[in-house]
Amino acid sequence: MAHRHDTSLTGAELPPIDLRSDTVTKPTEAMYARMASAPLGDDGLDGDPTVQELEAVAAAALGKDAGLFVPSCTMANLLATLAQSQRSEQIVLEANAHMYSSERGAATFTGQFYLAIAGSDGAMDLNLLEDALQGEGLKLRTALVAMETSHNNASGAVLPLEHMQAVHAMASARGVPVHLDGARLFNAAVALETVPAEVARHSDTVSLCLSKGLSAPAGAVLAGPRAVIDRSRRFRRMLGGTQRQIGILAAAGLEAVQVMGARLGEDHRRARALSDALNAIGPKLSATIPQTNIVQVDVSLSGRDSAAWSGALEKAGLRARPWGRRRLRCVTHRHIDDADIDRAVAAFRTVAGVLA
Amino acid sequence: MAHRHDTSLTGAELPPIDLRSDTVTKPTEAMYARMASAPLGDDGLDGDPTVQELEAVAAAALGKDAGLFVPSCTMANLLATLAQSQRSEQIVLEANAHMYSSERGAATFTGQFYLAIAGSDGAMDLNLLEDALQGEGLKLRTALVAMETSHNNASGAVLPLEHMQAVHAMASARGVPVHLDGARLFNAAVALETVPAEVARHSDTVSLCLSKGLSAPAGAVLAGPRAVIDRSRRFRRMLGGTQRQIGILAAAGLEAVQVMGARLGEDHRRARALSDALNAIGPKLSATIPQTNIVQVDVSLSGRDSAAWSGALEKAGLRARPWGRRRLRCVTHRHIDDADIDRAVAAFRTVAGVLA
Amino acid sequence: MAHRHDTSLTGAELPPIDLRSDTVTKPTEAMYARMASAPLGDDGLDGDPTVQELEAVAAAALGKDAGLFVPSCTMANLLATLAQSQRSEQIVLEANAHMYSSERGAATFTGQFYLAIAGSDGAMDLNLLEDALQGEGLKLRTALVAMETSHNNASGAVLPLEHMQAVHAMASARGVPVHLDGARLFNAAVALETVPAEVARHSDTVSLCLSKGLSAPAGAVLAGPRAVIDRSRRFRRMLGGTQRQIGILAAAGLEAVQVMGARLGEDHRRARALSDALNAIGPKLSATIPQTNIVQVDVSLSGRDSAAWSGALEKAGLRARPWGRRRLRCVTHRHIDDADIDRAVAAFRTVAGVLA
Amino acid sequence: MAHRHDTSLTGAELPPIDLRSDTVTKPTEAMYARMASAPLGDDGLDGDPTVQELEAVAAAALGKDAGLFVPSCTMANLLATLAQSQRSEQIVLEANAHMYSSERGAATFTGQFYLAIAGSDGAMDLNLLEDALQGEGLKLRTALVAMETSHNNASGAVLPLEHMQAVHAMASARGVPVHLDGARLFNAAVALETVPAEVARHSDTVSLCLSKGLSAPAGAVLAGPRAVIDRSRRFRRMLGGTQRQIGILAAAGLEAVQVMGARLGEDHRRARALSDALNAIGPKLSATIPQTNIVQVDVSLSGRDSAAWSGALEKAGLRARPWGRRRLRCVTHRHIDDADIDRAVAAFRTVAGVLA
Repeated sequence: MAHRHDTSLTGAELPPIDLRSDTVTKPTEAMYARMASAPLGDDGLDGDPTVQELEAVAAAALGKDAGLFVPSCTMANLLATLAQSQRSEQIVLEANAHMYSSERGAATFTGQFYLAIAGSDGAMDLNLLEDALQGEGLKLRTALVAMETSHNNASGAVLPLEHMQAVHAMASARGVPVHLDGARLFNAAVALETVPAEVARHSDTVSLCLSKGLSAPAGAVLAGPRAVIDRSRRFRRMLGGTQRQIGILAAAGLEAVQVMGARLGEDHRRARALSDALNAIGPKLSATIPQTNIVQVDVSLSGRDSAAWSGALEKAGLRARPWGRRRLRCVTHRHIDDADIDRAVAAFRTVAGVLA
Repeated sequence: MAHRHDTSLTGAELPPIDLRSDTVTKPTEAMYARMASAPLGDDGLDGDPTVQELEAVAAAALGKDAGLFVPSCTMANLLATLAQSQRSEQIVLEANAHMYSSERGAATFTGQFYLAIAGSDGAMDLNLLEDALQGEGLKLRTALVAMETSHNNASGAVLPLEHMQAVHAMASARGVPVHLDGARLFNAAVALETVPAEVARHSDTVSLCLSKGLSAPAGAVLAGPRAVIDRSRRFRRMLGGTQRQIGILAAAGLEAVQVMGARLGEDHRRARALSDALNAIGPKLSATIPQTNIVQVDVSLSGRDSAAWSGALEKAGLRARPWGRRRLRCVTHRHIDDADIDRAVAAFRTVAGVLA
Repeated sequence: MAHRHDTSLTGAELPPIDLRSDTVTKPTEAMYARMASAPLGDDGLDGDPTVQELEAVAAAALGKDAGLFVPSCTMANLLATLAQSQRSEQIVLEANAHMYSSERGAATFTGQFYLAIAGSDGAMDLNLLEDALQGEGLKLRTALVAMETSHNNASGAVLPLEHMQAVHAMASARGVPVHLDGARLFNAAVALETVPAEVARHSDTVSLCLSKGLSAPAGAVLAGPRAVIDRSRRFRRMLGGTQRQIGILAAAGLEAVQVMGARLGEDHRRARALSDALNAIGPKLSATIPQTNIVQVDVSLSGRDSAAWSGALEKAGLRARPWGRRRLRCVTHRHIDDADIDRAVAAFRTVAGVLA
Repeated sequence: MAHRHDTSLTGAELPPIDLRSDTVTKPTEAMYARMASAPLGDDGLDGDPTVQELEAVAAAALGKDAGLFVPSCTMANLLATLAQSQRSEQIVLEANAHMYSSERGAATFTGQFYLAIAGSDGAMDLNLLEDALQGEGLKLRTALVAMETSHNNASGAVLPLEHMQAVHAMASARGVPVHLDGARLFNAAVALETVPAEVARHSDTVSLCLSKGLSAPAGAVLAGPRAVIDRSRRFRRMLGGTQRQIGILAAAGLEAVQVMGARLGEDHRRARALSDALNAIGPKLSATIPQTNIVQVDVSLSGRDSAAWSGALEKAGLRARPWGRRRLRCVTHRHIDDADIDRAVAAFRTVAGVLA
């Protein structure tokens, strides 16, 4: 079946290469097929069998007792905080974590304080974490510690398992659970050459986004202890995240979890190729060396800011996202092949000649 | 294509008749077809064309400027309150409104007070509304008034347009906007023999559920003034309600809005037939006379409570939902035909013989 | 020592009789003496000895383990909810309770839902309470039940001890604590001819206002189990209710708790005298028969509303407070003697001749 | 009249010198006299004349339109945020601000996000402030910027007026109001050799604590535009901060505002003397050079932590407060004279000989 989104281009003009995010990925044919034949039920009443299958499969893949299918990873992270902390307690996270930089609005609904502590490459400073955990005297009690891997704002950096283990041990010693924002956890697993459950081992709860590199149209899973998931299910309803025959989306999620992780290595390889080529262009561009599928390109030495670069690249057929004033973010994904990388590099080279 | 959910039954045993809710309805073949071919985009980045089409179509059908596709009607109602009121203000609604009886958890996230005032048949007492609107002196300011039609807990009663007009006029005179929980607004329109926009006329914002009688698998639309919708869009992201290639669900929603309203009259006719037949069984059963597709059956004179009835009916092949201790709720929908009504009545008659 | 507030009036014109509230009472000479000599400390650091003495004395008087001195009874009630419930849980109270009618703004800070249930004479309907306590399925869990005695909006009605016992038993059976808003608890004790601890027996926590009939300038005490009081102390700091050398106010509070209860019977006797005299004026005035110090006077049969009456009474030398559109509230207190009651009745009689 | 708190010591043993905080200061005789004779009213009903006088006097001293008397500076700061921002907006402050480090619990009640940005000597980085103010796209809108002077955690540093002006200009350019946490604003004014109103000039609202160096037993004032103060008054009631005959405390506050600022220079002189003497003890102690009345003493080079020092100093007759693990905080105030400074230095010298 020909899906309209697969419009083949026969004309002279190519569509722009879209490196803005791996969230732009569209469903695979296999996902469409599973969506068309998935058994459905009412997930707000007595359950949807496909959702239940996805929850079980994802929980198993992440090494947790139970799973909950939710509309987005942002909601998964929000539910993890609601279900594991009380009002007037604090959530500790690294200062560049996505939950802090981009999902902070969630904190305005929960009566919790988000305490950001400094880190490097996405890994929080353990001394500062220890301070935050003490919570002696009049301080707010720390109810939850959150990590993120791979780490979006740290250019897709992967937390070392030793670091995760240390954080988990410190928190557990105080009776504090650890949540892992695993929006791109499968990327981390590929980079670490291990299985997702190993990456999630040093956490109590973990979220997994199905609609980034894994290419499902939408949805995420929160996994963890059954009691936490049961509480999360109640909060999901309060927030309006409970849906009815949503097995239709879960079907695509099953394909994402069971099949799509295998190809992420390709994205990583291409990200590295992009980085190498950009760094070869000259001193005015400085690209991070990616561990996964995210490259940040510092354009500040060019004398032009990221918005100027983004605009010029767009004209040259490449979409990249300003990441602050000095940097652009480029993310590889399933719709980007080797030729696209070459074209992307060519676009940067063109713009470097004009702008810099 | 044969969808697994359409499993045909050839055996001797029929599946139970499910009158628990119209939320159990599954997607139509036409919905599957539209989902398979809908153009998709990233609704969290620069938009999804199918979502945009649904938002425009639904807003037009409801007579509002703009629309927003959201995961559920609960979230639509929650966003309407967030976008139209400030913290420490109050939302006034009728004491049996679904937003109060079942969605009250939302109020625990928003810093708003839900003030329930008495009503009859789902229509709030206008004197009490006037008191609440005065907000003189030290009282909390009323920021929003919410109505619901058809009214779930009032057995699907439809608010008279004159009542809606009166509420809107009173609120508007104080500069207070009105939200309409239109989870089953298309049912109200059919009952009133008018178009949905007429039902929504006496409100500033309106929610519409796509997954009840309209049979979409999931999703709802919030419609209203563009500025309110813009604010709602920001809150939707904070709550984790923003999704990526969600045009795949919106495609089914388009079918729901454009096509599915036309057949709701059938559900209403069957609900009336059910009510009439139940009232004919004898004095121990008392069924409401439905205006739409919801019948409440009072079983209290039988000397048995609703849980006992529900259990016995289940054994007789009928699923009906206890609604408090004295009543059962029966909802007709697309999967219920005339023969099902006959079987449902027979089940009641059987149980009446045994239980009462 | 002559305090300025004791200005003696030698002129022809008498000051108005102020029956608006018992909150207008000023400190006694004994209170001034205790304030002048009370040992002080830093209650936000390592404690204030006079505060500690008051907390111990009040807790003992109320039959509880521990006490906490707070700026107002509103804050005491707010802390009781914060310390005994979690976010997204509900507080159940009678629909005319002061915590609901006048302190509802507190609920907008706590992430809790205030569920009002109907009652009579301030006593909630026990069947509705049972429904609320069940909290089965998807309902919000009830975390706290709150009562009020004497009951302000019920014209100072005193809850029967049997009712309080029944409420406490029902809640305790579900593991739900009970809070008693005892703003005027000493009035209830006097009316019941018992000690305050007996009135507070059927509650887990209790608030006591020191600045109503007890005449302290300001302040209240929350009493209850030590663990609850410890949590309340932390929340008090967060809300800005922790003060430094506040023993200076607590000194007046000690006099209030230890001495001032004894004279409340006088206020009750005068309230009854006022009521009797008003009911004798004629059919256009209908006064409640007070159990304590609050009389509500229904003026609706006079054809004029409460605002008109209040304005006219003010000109006749009496201040009474409109209580809704149909009623005035009159409260007796330490500054009202028998002659004032006579003057108040005369004022009503005068206005009745003019207005009605 | 002899107040019990003035117990004269005739025995051999001197009480410890208390440098833990200037909050330990007790009321002056003049304050007691004013408290004894202040006219009182019901501040929760139609006003207390002494409170009104204090609000007017303090507002004038701070150069603002209107004032509000509140139980504590924490509540003043909390009200400033509630009255000037909406839910799901952010408050920007310097990372060591007292509102962030110690009053953060307030944020858990308000539905606002507290964004801490780095600074030096209590002055926030203006580039980071500019970033936070932009609030473009999906970021939370910044609703309020808060400064603090003198700055508690920056060892009593005084913000340069030029810095305050720059912050105010940047915020005002975006339509964002500025709040000044002026818990010790009078100390800043003395250090800057100007009047308090000049210090508060570059803010829209300002809080002033009456119970630190100014020696009132309790209370604070929030000052600002009348509309903001009116909104704050409503929120004060919701939080339980409204009190009745509280003019009795306001009377002491009047003395604090009108009289007590004049002597703060003494405290500053003694703090400087203490710092100089401690730095002369040797390399193992490093004291900040105070601008006002707060000295931080770094003991980390002694090889012992602040808790060990605090314990040993207590035995030597000096109370100083651990400020993190490496430092002690010493605060001079009205109860500390030159001889006390000598004794304090001697205690440090003794402990340095034993511990270090």
